[in-house]
Amino acid sequence: MELVSLAEVRAAAADLARTVLRTPLLPTPWHDRLWVKPESLQPVGSFKLRGATHAVARLDPGARRRGVVTHSSGNHGQALAYAARTAGIPCTVVVPEGAPTVKVDRIRALGATVLLVPPARRLAEAERVVADTGAALVPPFDDRRVIAGQGTVGLEIAQDLPDVDVVLVPVGGGGLASGVATAIRALRPAATVVGVEPALAADAHESLATGALTSWEPALTYRTVADGLRTNLSALTFAHLRERLDTVVTVSEAEILAATGRLARDVRLVAEPSGAVALAARLFHSDELPPGRTVAVVTGGNVDPALLAGLLTAADDPADPALLTAADPSADEEERPTG
Amino acid sequence: MELVSLAEVRAAAADLARTVLRTPLLPTPWHDRLWVKPESLQPVGSFKLRGATHAVARLDPGARRRGVVTHSSGNHGQALAYAARTAGIPCTVVVPEGAPTVKVDRIRALGATVLLVPPARRLAEAERVVADTGAALVPPFDDRRVIAGQGTVGLEIAQDLPDVDVVLVPVGGGGLASGVATAIRALRPAATVVGVEPALAADAHESLATGALTSWEPALTYRTVADGLRTNLSALTFAHLRERLDTVVTVSEAEILAATGRLARDVRLVAEPSGAVALAARLFHSDELPPGRTVAVVTGGNVDPALLAGLLTAADDPADPALLTAADPSADEEERPTG
Repeated sequence: MELVSLAEVRAAAADLARTVLRTPLLPTPWHDRLWVKPESLQPVGSFKLRGATHAVARLDPGARRRGVVTHSSGNHGQALAYAARTAGIPCTVVVPEGAPTVKVDRIRALGATVLLVPPARRLAEAERVVADTGAALVPPFDDRRVIAGQGTVGLEIAQDLPDVDVVLVPVGGGGLASGVATAIRALRPAATVVGVEPALAADAHESLATGALTSWEPALTYRTVADGLRTNLSALTFAHLRERLDTVVTVSEAEILAATGRLARDVRLVAEPSGAVALAARLFHSDELPPGRTVAVVTGGNVDPALLAGLLTAADDPADPALLTAADPSADEEERPTG
Repeated sequence: MELVSLAEVRAAAADLARTVLRTPLLPTPWHDRLWVKPESLQPVGSFKLRGATHAVARLDPGARRRGVVTHSSGNHGQALAYAARTAGIPCTVVVPEGAPTVKVDRIRALGATVLLVPPARRLAEAERVVADTGAALVPPFDDRRVIAGQGTVGLEIAQDLPDVDVVLVPVGGGGLASGVATAIRALRPAATVVGVEPALAADAHESLATGALTSWEPALTYRTVADGLRTNLSALTFAHLRERLDTVVTVSEAEILAATGRLARDVRLVAEPSGAVALAARLFHSDELPPGRTVAVVTGGNVDPALLAGLLTAADDPADPALLTAADPSADEEERPTG
C-alpha cells in the first residue's frame, strides 16, 4: 500500500491557506518545554476542517458541480459542510435518526442538506447519494486527501518549532496521526511521534502491539467520554501508523477530564475531552515519554457546555473521584458509527 | 503633551517577538465580517504582557539589575512578573491585604516578591520600594512604554486585515485603547476605532463627551462584573483617546455576560467579562457602529471558573434574567484601586 508523501501534505497546505486557521503554538504554564497546538480554534472547532477543505479543493470542476457527501455527523460532518460552503458547492450529510438536534441544526446552518436515516443505514444511504447524484464521498479519515490535509498540522509544528522532540497526537480513526507522523517523520526524523488513546478505546494500541488491525466493538469504545476517539483504524491509517508512529500511550477517563479542565483554567482553551487526551498523556504519563520539547495537539473544542461547566468547578487531580462525577453521562450523546 | 508615535509602537513590536504570542484573528460564526483577536491566549492570559515586556526591554543595564516594581495585583501584576522572569530581572508586586490567595500564589509562582500592605498604602509602598532599591516603577497604563507595547495589538490587526473598517477595544485605564488607536489611525486612517466600556464604569465615555477628564468613584465602578475596566483614565491616556479614538460605546452587565458565554460556546475561548465587552458592543449595539470588517479585541481570559461555569449553562440572550443570576457576586473579588 502506497503511503501519503510529504509532497502531498505540502500540496494540501497550499489548498488550506484561505479557509483554515494557521494555529499558533501556545506555551503552557505546567512545563517550560510543553506547547499545545489549539485546533479547537478552527472554524467549526476542530482539525477536521483541514482534511475536508483539502478533499474539496482536489475535486475537478465537474465533480465540484455535483458536490460532496459524508456519513459522519460529528466534527467531520460540520467541517465538510463548512468547506463546501466556502467553496460554493453542494454538500449532503447523512445523519442517524436520534442524533442530537443541536448537531443537525449546526450542519443545516452551514448550508448542507441533512438526510436522517436509521443508524445502520448511514453508509448505504451515503453510497446511494453518490450513485444517484454523482456527489463525491469524503470519508472522515479513510482517504488519502483527508490524511494529507490533517498532515498540515505536523507541517506547521515542524515550521514553528524546528527542534521539536516529541509530538503527541490523539488517535481515533487515525487520519490525523497518519498525517502528522508523515510530516514529522520526514521533516524532523529525530523526533518521536506518539499516538494517544483512551484506555477504553485502545484499538490502535492493540493493533500496533499485535501487528494486526484489530477492531473494538462499540459496546467497548462507547464507554469513553472521548466521543471523537471511539472509531477504529482503517487498513489505510493502520499502514501509516505501523510505519511512521513510534508508540501509543493510553490515558484514563479521569486523566482526560482533568486535562480538559486544566486547558480551560490554565490555558484558557475550551477543549472537548477527545481534544485533551494528548495533553493528558504529557501531564500524567510523562514517565512513558521521551524528554524534551513537546507539542500536544488539542484537536477540537466541541464540548457539551454542561460537561465543561462541571469540570471548571471540579478538582484537577485525576485521583479525585469528584472528577468522574463531574462528567455527566447524559453528555455522552455521540451516535454510534456504522462500521 | 506629546503622544506616543507609530515609530514607538513599531519599536515595541521588535521587543516583544520572543516573549509575546502573535495572536491570530479568529473568524466568528455570528457574522461573516467579524473577527476576534484573542489576547486571552497570551501567557498569563492577557494583553498586559505586551506593555510589561516592552517596559522591561527598555531598561538600561543598570536599571535591569535593580529590577521592576508595580502596585497592580491584577493582570498587569502577573504580566510584569512574567516579563521580569523572562528577562531574568527582579520584580516586586505590591498587593493589598485581602487580595485573593490565588492571585498572590500566581504572582509568587512567577518568581516575583509579593509585599502585602493595607489597600490605601499600595502606591506609597511601591514608591518606597523605588526609593529604597532603585527599582523601576512600571505602572499598568499611565506610561508611554506601556501604551506603545499595547499598541502592537493594533499593529498586528492592521497587518493581518489591512482593509479593516472597525476596531473595537475595551477601555479601562485606557492604555490599550491609546496604543491601538495610535497604530490604526496611522496605518488605516479610514478605519473607525471604538472604545467600549461597561455602562457602570463609563468614565471614559463621560470624559470624552464633556471634554474634561472625569473620574468615577470606586463605589460606582465596582458595580460592574468587568473588574479589569473599573479603572479611570489618566491625563496621558485621556490625551491619546481625545485625539485618536472615534467614540465610546457602553454595554450592560447582561450583555457582557452573554458575550462571555458566547465566546466559550461558539468560539471556544475562555474570556473574562472585561475581555468580552468589545464583542458585546458588536453583538448588541451594532446600530451604534459603522458597518464593515470588524475586529473585537478579547483582552483577557482570567475569569473565575465558577462564574464561567454558570454562564456556560445560562441563556445567551441578554434579555433573559437568568443571565445575571449566573454571575455569582462572590466572583467579584478584585481589590480596590488606590487612586
